[in-house]
Amino acid sequence: MPILVMKFGGTSVGSLDRIHRAAKRIGREVANGYDVIVIVSAMSGETNKLVGYVEETSPLFDAREYDAVVSSGENVTAGLMALTLQEMDVPARSWQGWQVPVRTTSAHASARIEEIPSDNILAKFSEGMRVAVVAGFQGISPEGRITTLGRGGSDTTAVAFAAAFEAERCDIYTDVDGVYTTDPRITAKARKLDRIAFEEMLELASLGAKVLQTRSVELAMRYNVKLRVLSSFEEPSDEAGTLVCAEEDIVESNVVAGVAYSREEAKLTLTHVEDRPGIAAAIFGPLADAGVNVDMIVQNISDAGTTDMTFSCPVNEVKRAEKALAAAREANEIGFAELIADTEVAKVSIVGIGMRSHAGVAAKMFKTLRDEGINIKVITTSEIKVSVLIDRKYMELAVQALHDAFELDKAA
Amino acid sequence: MPILVMKFGGTSVGSLDRIHRAAKRIGREVANGYDVIVIVSAMSGETNKLVGYVEETSPLFDAREYDAVVSSGENVTAGLMALTLQEMDVPARSWQGWQVPVRTTSAHASARIEEIPSDNILAKFSEGMRVAVVAGFQGISPEGRITTLGRGGSDTTAVAFAAAFEAERCDIYTDVDGVYTTDPRITAKARKLDRIAFEEMLELASLGAKVLQTRSVELAMRYNVKLRVLSSFEEPSDEAGTLVCAEEDIVESNVVAGVAYSREEAKLTLTHVEDRPGIAAAIFGPLADAGVNVDMIVQNISDAGTTDMTFSCPVNEVKRAEKALAAAREANEIGFAELIADTEVAKVSIVGIGMRSHAGVAAKMFKTLRDEGINIKVITTSEIKVSVLIDRKYMELAVQALHDAFELDKAA
Repeated sequence: MPILVMKFGGTSVGSLDRIHRAAKRIGREVANGYDVIVIVSAMSGETNKLVGYVEETSPLFDAREYDAVVSSGENVTAGLMALTLQEMDVPARSWQGWQVPVRTTSAHASARIEEIPSDNILAKFSEGMRVAVVAGFQGISPEGRITTLGRGGSDTTAVAFAAAFEAERCDIYTDVDGVYTTDPRITAKARKLDRIAFEEMLELASLGAKVLQTRSVELAMRYNVKLRVLSSFEEPSDEAGTLVCAEEDIVESNVVAGVAYSREEAKLTLTHVEDRPGIAAAIFGPLADAGVNVDMIVQNISDAGTTDMTFSCPVNEVKRAEKALAAAREANEIGFAELIADTEVAKVSIVGIGMRSHAGVAAKMFKTLRDEGINIKVITTSEIKVSVLIDRKYMELAVQALHDAFELDKAA
Repeated sequence: MPILVMKFGGTSVGSLDRIHRAAKRIGREVANGYDVIVIVSAMSGETNKLVGYVEETSPLFDAREYDAVVSSGENVTAGLMALTLQEMDVPARSWQGWQVPVRTTSAHASARIEEIPSDNILAKFSEGMRVAVVAGFQGISPEGRITTLGRGGSDTTAVAFAAAFEAERCDIYTDVDGVYTTDPRITAKARKLDRIAFEEMLELASLGAKVLQTRSVELAMRYNVKLRVLSSFEEPSDEAGTLVCAEEDIVESNVVAGVAYSREEAKLTLTHVEDRPGIAAAIFGPLADAGVNVDMIVQNISDAGTTDMTFSCPVNEVKRAEKALAAAREANEIGFAELIADTEVAKVSIVGIGMRSHAGVAAKMFKTLRDEGINIKVITTSEIKVSVLIDRKYMELAVQALHDAFELDKAA
């Protein structure tokens, strides 16, 4: 039988009633003739509660213990979903990550999936089981310890299973009915996109659109997984949701597809860094080793042999970054005068494949922000996006102004 | 270094603050020179919440999924405890049941521990780790699925580890400061026992004293584990708690050591059962297969080739019992006229090794109940206990009256 992967996010399984509704959708696909692999998140609020426990217990936590704690929410949902399906006479059972096993790297709290053997689950399908419910977000390291894939990791679990089992489609059920031009909570003019290119989705996800985890889109692109994002609170239909697909499957599109943002950013500046070959590696190597997700990097012009190095990372990684840089200085690997952290910034980006063939897009963005009196602190650009770091308090204003300026409320 | 096992129950780890207090106790034992194996329960309320989810989802649940769900609470505490110890600079890490691995039978929801390999944890001790935090109550079946040991199973986990690692002592930290002559919530005259024999503790535990799981005491007796029950809310001292020990270590004792009760009992009667050899096996075999914990059994005198068979079991297993018996009747394995369930009964028992050498103890019990106007529905006796089934509404009254009659408020 053909295999379908269905993934349900935290709000879609946020109560027993919602689990029941999700199970009915699964039952319909079983009735349609699919063997279904269901990937579940923790019930909404659970993971935040567990992360809160860990952070309160140990600010610089051992990521292996963090993973052991925060992975438990998904196990609960997986068991409850299997029981719900059994009550509906759909043969089902649950799997935890280590039982499949979902083999990952040892990079705790942000591990990558390396292998998903399919024999175990396929054998059960051949025995008549119709639904394998798998706890998302988690795996097992080569050392036999539990790993997690980072926030939103259940999306990646879903796409990885779709690839490993050559599923016909991977449906991501969430609390939004698709991918929008920007966050509808910030502007009511936000519009749902019917289709979006993998590349655009990648930029939107990594920049904070929060609909799909970046790595899940990368994986989908690499293995050409048909990926659909849709709401678990709407009636099913063929037009439901947004299809994430290859660029060539999109006929018409706006120059800018969407405006993304990331609220909890921090800007760190190292002053009077010695300007020598290898200095960037000496700074960002230790940060990478400490698990700091460095995003934007700007290096100023050298002045008397020293330079200022500015980078951004999530606010909750600032402490770790400071510790890693202090250690590197103590070990005489780098030298700098001061480490200045600005934890009150946010990132706003415009994204669109159309930018490649249209000039003046960045200029229009900067002019729009200037007209609103918003100061730009850092700029980075790529082929299909322009990102700026601004004071956090202007974030909503910036998103609204850019959405208007690029007329994203109108379809192409 | 000598090994100590310390077990903390749900209320002893019911908040981050309490986990911190427990960690300080562990730290003291590490400072005393012990390598410590800590067994933790779920934070208080968590397991009940999860059991509630399962029962609401599926009244006749698949016990394998039940285990996958309800075992998750212990994993959270284990990780948090390891993190708390690390914050106090005590080298520690967590283990989930399948990681040790705690090998159990496949009897889901009430599995028995079969083997605990010690090499994994001992290797870490030899590398300098001082505390192994193990999630209690759980293990792994030969099929690779998660099992749980039944309510209070973390006590059994603790004693099994103490036996497997030849620990110097097994300290069970709980929310009571020892074993009492009866439940202090029922009578203020209840008195703490300094020592109690394994055999007495077994009867008290299995009859609902709720301080230690029965199997943990059985195991401690078999492997001669020094078992101490004490409160995690009192200052440590040598006199703290109750030592559960061999009979010969107790010099003076009352005839009756304690009065136990079990509130949520049900009495089931099969009427007009065919009275033939093998009928008991035909009835209680299917009940055992269905996981019904049958306790008291009474068979009436045969009347015209048929008899009435009465037994008791926990109230929440009545549905399962009814289903199993109906199936056995349908399969023509047994015949009966009616199945009458009385779900409003409780069990009250007096327990004491001294009964062996004292006559008239049972008679005194029956007289005491008669004087209070309490009707006895079923009686069973053993060498060191007498149990009766009575209307649930008289349970507290019966316990108080028996505690007075046997003068349990006074030490021997």
